[in-house]
Amino acid sequence: MGNTLNIGLFGFGVVGQGIYQVINRATNAHARIKRICVRNINKPRAIEPAPGLLTDSADDILTDPEIDLIVEVVDDASASYSIVTSAIRRGIPVVSGSKAMIARHLPELIALQHEFNTALLYDASSCGSIPVIRNLEEYYDNDLLLEVKGILNGSSNYILSRVFDHGEPYDEALARAQKLGFAESDPSFDIEGYDSLFKLIIITVHALGVYVNPEDVFTYGISSISDHDIRYAREKRMKIKLVAQVVKVAPDRFTMFVMPEFVSPSKYIYSVDDEYNGVVIRGECYDRQFMFGKGAGSLPTASSILSDVMARRHGYRYEYKKMDYMELPVYDTDVLLKIYLRFADRDLPSRLPFANITEMYSSETYNYVIGEIRLADLISCRALLSGPEVFVANIPRFFLDKD
Amino acid sequence: MGNTLNIGLFGFGVVGQGIYQVINRATNAHARIKRICVRNINKPRAIEPAPGLLTDSADDILTDPEIDLIVEVVDDASASYSIVTSAIRRGIPVVSGSKAMIARHLPELIALQHEFNTALLYDASSCGSIPVIRNLEEYYDNDLLLEVKGILNGSSNYILSRVFDHGEPYDEALARAQKLGFAESDPSFDIEGYDSLFKLIIITVHALGVYVNPEDVFTYGISSISDHDIRYAREKRMKIKLVAQVVKVAPDRFTMFVMPEFVSPSKYIYSVDDEYNGVVIRGECYDRQFMFGKGAGSLPTASSILSDVMARRHGYRYEYKKMDYMELPVYDTDVLLKIYLRFADRDLPSRLPFANITEMYSSETYNYVIGEIRLADLISCRALLSGPEVFVANIPRFFLDKD
Repeated sequence: MGNTLNIGLFGFGVVGQGIYQVINRATNAHARIKRICVRNINKPRAIEPAPGLLTDSADDILTDPEIDLIVEVVDDASASYSIVTSAIRRGIPVVSGSKAMIARHLPELIALQHEFNTALLYDASSCGSIPVIRNLEEYYDNDLLLEVKGILNGSSNYILSRVFDHGEPYDEALARAQKLGFAESDPSFDIEGYDSLFKLIIITVHALGVYVNPEDVFTYGISSISDHDIRYAREKRMKIKLVAQVVKVAPDRFTMFVMPEFVSPSKYIYSVDDEYNGVVIRGECYDRQFMFGKGAGSLPTASSILSDVMARRHGYRYEYKKMDYMELPVYDTDVLLKIYLRFADRDLPSRLPFANITEMYSSETYNYVIGEIRLADLISCRALLSGPEVFVANIPRFFLDKD
Repeated sequence: MGNTLNIGLFGFGVVGQGIYQVINRATNAHARIKRICVRNINKPRAIEPAPGLLTDSADDILTDPEIDLIVEVVDDASASYSIVTSAIRRGIPVVSGSKAMIARHLPELIALQHEFNTALLYDASSCGSIPVIRNLEEYYDNDLLLEVKGILNGSSNYILSRVFDHGEPYDEALARAQKLGFAESDPSFDIEGYDSLFKLIIITVHALGVYVNPEDVFTYGISSISDHDIRYAREKRMKIKLVAQVVKVAPDRFTMFVMPEFVSPSKYIYSVDDEYNGVVIRGECYDRQFMFGKGAGSLPTASSILSDVMARRHGYRYEYKKMDYMELPVYDTDVLLKIYLRFADRDLPSRLPFANITEMYSSETYNYVIGEIRLADLISCRALLSGPEVFVANIPRFFLDKD
């Protein structure tokens, strides 16, 4: 396997410590952490690295000619951006787990990789231990792909599982997720759907070759879910899951969004519980494929990072092949969704441009409508849908379909 | 994407016709079938290729300097061996779906690829549309892998699903599988476990870097399953599935076998029904990952072939990296299994060297024991376990474990 790969690690939180453990355990990887850069050297840590490894100066890693690879798992998007771009500009390959930063800057990061002829790998940034990006890039490398849909955030899924399967109140479930280290330090990232969104942006680049700005994508989380919604779903023998999806709606168009969805027991993602992630890849000829694994937690993320480290050992880089296809599909929000809308203000449905309303319910305690509405209208009316008094969930058309 | 890739196709049965359809449909693949070699040109076919494509002379493809890649899906292991080795010796890369041939000749095929500096890809040979080989080779490229276990044969799984979920008699289910084109032309290949075995041999090379001769692996199929066994499993709220597995039993040792197994509802593979395949990959840090997809049928297999074709477009080849690891684990059959043995001849249990027997049942209609026995003893007593009067199934130790 040749010489030992010298890794400079940025970040030594939950994931960084996991990487330290995993790299030390995988002796065949022939890799070692040579230096670890952290913000505060003196902070007490659950795992103490070997003496002399810690530094608080990024340059100790960036200017060390012996460093072969940088692994960056910093919990701060702007620090992460600065580390990753500095490294690429110096020609040092990088493995990063910073999905928010990557999703926001991907076009620039792709251009930089070309310009400085080095690689940025980030399989760990999407779905923890499930190799979604690598498979989309290498295995589903053709135009038969129709849809990628899944549960991409382990923390919100853990919360919904506690609520649905264990009848736990939402707040308790959130607190438990944070205690177990599944939730990001800012929980809104998880429960408002942004973590799923960033992963979906990255997935879409590797699935369809198209970059969509995160700000242009309808994203709705689970923070306003109420006992009414949960009871409603249970009565229909369904679960509510936070689902991210990108779907070809025509040969030349696709749509994408992140929102809670009613999921029936016949669907693969119905049984994706706790902190697990599950992704369904649908294509013209192979029908549906389902990948499932731990989506959160220190060691699963760390072992995904290890896979990227090993791939770099063998010179692997994303080729972004699909971006060179002649005709890329276009992002389209002019598609009709069927949604469940729970609300307090009885004027709300009339202020939304529903194409039609198929069900209405009102009572002293809550109200809902079910109806069809354009995705573009959901985006333009986004402000009306916020706050604890409103909850929106997608109702997929074909409940009997396996997806 | 450069010039069109010229493909020479060997075999135009169910899978070959699927490849023809898929390649024609995947316009971005920029590939075309230039020539198709079949045994009998005049045989009527469900899909007729464009005029002039068919030939019955292998040399029309092998000596054509315009052919960039050979795709081989011939339903005859010795013809397949001859085509694949001839092509490699001429430096022509090959994509093959012939698992039996590959499993039997893999060490030689690896040596030939090195010697003639060309590539043989065969992701389609294992688990139809699920990218198991590529992922084991590229993504689980480290020594944290502990186990690969799954339902690798769509046809036998289809039959068991019909029997368990639809109460259909075994013979009817088999006939239906053959009618739907899931079963190999020789059904014993599927139902006696050999198809699963060959896939397991290939998987083990890419999972652990070790080639094991198929003849050295205990392989037991489902042909002798009876209503008694099915009723027994149902009473325990379990299903019987035909499971192939390779498992690290110590850091330096692993075991492997193919046999029916009692599967409880908590296991991922419990819900792998019909012609689907499902594979669980377990590792030290990432726990379990589950991949699921169509494992049989014309188009799923063809789209897997297309993935290999596209990979060749980008120069991909298996590196067999794990085979170069310094310390490879050793295949070991000195492991204790817990099995269910149904039998007619009441002397049978005493002729098998059970380490212990924990349950015995006798009645006028059937008898069974449950006990522990060494895998090596099962292998040496293999002859005693054949025939319709005997059925053996594995009972995994920890029913509550998700695997």
